[in-house]
Amino acid sequence: MEAKGQVTAEKYAADISSIREAQVRISSFIHRTPVISSETLMLLLEGIYSLNVNVSRKAALSLAAKLRGIPAYIVVPKNAPKCKVENVKRYGGRVIWSEPNLRSREDMATKVLQETGAVLLHPYNDGRTISGQGTISLELLEQAPQLDTIIVPISGGGLISGVALAAKSINPAIRILAAEPMGANDAAQSKAAGRIITLPETNTIADGLRAFLGDLTCNCQLVVKNCQLFEDLVDDVITVEDKAIVEAMRLCYEILKVVVEPSGAIGLAAVLSDDFRNNPAWKDCSNVGIVLSGGNVDLDVLWGSFRK
Amino acid sequence: MEAKGQVTAEKYAADISSIREAQVRISSFIHRTPVISSETLMLLLEGIYSLNVNVSRKAALSLAAKLRGIPAYIVVPKNAPKCKVENVKRYGGRVIWSEPNLRSREDMATKVLQETGAVLLHPYNDGRTISGQGTISLELLEQAPQLDTIIVPISGGGLISGVALAAKSINPAIRILAAEPMGANDAAQSKAAGRIITLPETNTIADGLRAFLGDLTCNCQLVVKNCQLFEDLVDDVITVEDKAIVEAMRLCYEILKVVVEPSGAIGLAAVLSDDFRNNPAWKDCSNVGIVLSGGNVDLDVLWGSFRK
Repeated sequence: MEAKGQVTAEKYAADISSIREAQVRISSFIHRTPVISSETLMLLLEGIYSLNVNVSRKAALSLAAKLRGIPAYIVVPKNAPKCKVENVKRYGGRVIWSEPNLRSREDMATKVLQETGAVLLHPYNDGRTISGQGTISLELLEQAPQLDTIIVPISGGGLISGVALAAKSINPAIRILAAEPMGANDAAQSKAAGRIITLPETNTIADGLRAFLGDLTCNCQLVVKNCQLFEDLVDDVITVEDKAIVEAMRLCYEILKVVVEPSGAIGLAAVLSDDFRNNPAWKDCSNVGIVLSGGNVDLDVLWGSFRK
Repeated sequence: MEAKGQVTAEKYAADISSIREAQVRISSFIHRTPVISSETLMLLLEGIYSLNVNVSRKAALSLAAKLRGIPAYIVVPKNAPKCKVENVKRYGGRVIWSEPNLRSREDMATKVLQETGAVLLHPYNDGRTISGQGTISLELLEQAPQLDTIIVPISGGGLISGVALAAKSINPAIRILAAEPMGANDAAQSKAAGRIITLPETNTIADGLRAFLGDLTCNCQLVVKNCQLFEDLVDDVITVEDKAIVEAMRLCYEILKVVVEPSGAIGLAAVLSDDFRNNPAWKDCSNVGIVLSGGNVDLDVLWGSFRK
């Protein structure tokens, strides 16, 4: 059997070197994200798993630009959570509104580039973004080298690409599982179909997970053939209902004492799901790391979701 | 001028040795609490301070007892937040209800001791509790040795006694400031009067800070004379309004991404207060640590407080 997850440098838009370079570049601006272990969550999981949670608190792009004195224009869909917009402004970013669809976002971004001469930094479909996100694995595995599995939210695929590239470079045997909301399950459908599936619409509370796989993450530099990403780097996709996401979010608040948005809590929802726990393929996952990212919560909306 | 804050072993119910012993004893059961630094909070403070926040996530007594197979009876006032009661039960504690006043709590505790032969562990008026809480300073100063000031919530005085004892043993020059809600400001009043003041009632959202200074923390083994605690260990008391507490709690959620209860956020409220920032006495505090403890939040109540 050919080893799954072997990572070579030329194949993808990012690799362990570009990820380590990103780590060095950002090291003076960021704080090392703590890994949280929870006895209580382990009890909830009937003591099966040793659970390590990496809480990602990435320095916002706006802040990074501000620290270097560069203007940052952030294209934001009109239906973005208020708190995300406020965070962009707080860190000095200039908000450019778009309609809440991918086409309008790309059109607005193109317009901004033309008018300002700015350089595009795509939120996931960009080797630099993927390299930066790969630093999560470096931090996580430095603090919890015993992990045999990492669960990562999937949306555009940038986060999981970076995490998988770095993790499998360090430990080729490590399993990378994607967690995806049922109402935006294009990755699961793409995996089943063996080609990129783009959904006509999405319906999930996890607003950060409504994007679709990009060509870099799914069918261009990052892969040999369409959706090779899954073959190479992602061992499986676990889909979860919004209700389970909200329940996982509540556990994060009540047990881990960590503020995460729905998109950020989905990895915990996946670990707690029957799909994961009863699947014989994951029976020997005994040291599971979960990437919780991010933490932009509208407190009013949060309350509404807990009340449902 | 006599050096303030010199700590000798015999004087108090706890000291740096008992605190280090506590640390060793609990080391296999707890996880090191991460210190969080925040650029954004520093920006809010106009770049004056370097801010380190110690997020306390103490293993609950119930859990400690459960791990050792000992029954734990926890006397809980009827008006305690639902989540605290649920946490006690989750960790295997047996809840004994009392009326919401100190007298009834002590009566119920005495009754339980008589009926069960249990041993009393007072929530703050006990050298063992104080030693355990002192481990917070060990963790904090190991991770942020540059601190010149630590701000700690004050209620019964156990937490601040432990933190101050350990911190001043390690660095006698370190300043210890107490943060107290305006509606339960017995420590500030006691300090001003030079004797213990007990309030007829308290009125604050910070339910964890409604207790009064105990005799150990204020006038018995821990002190030479009444309220010597303040002379020896606490450099000042900063009182804050509930509104400022809620605002600080919101900042913890939105910026630090940490779940704290109102009592836990009060130290941040104190740092942000004009009383602290405009006081010439604290002008040279340039590396401030804040103890955020604890994180028992009723999510429904939280939402209500943010909406006000």
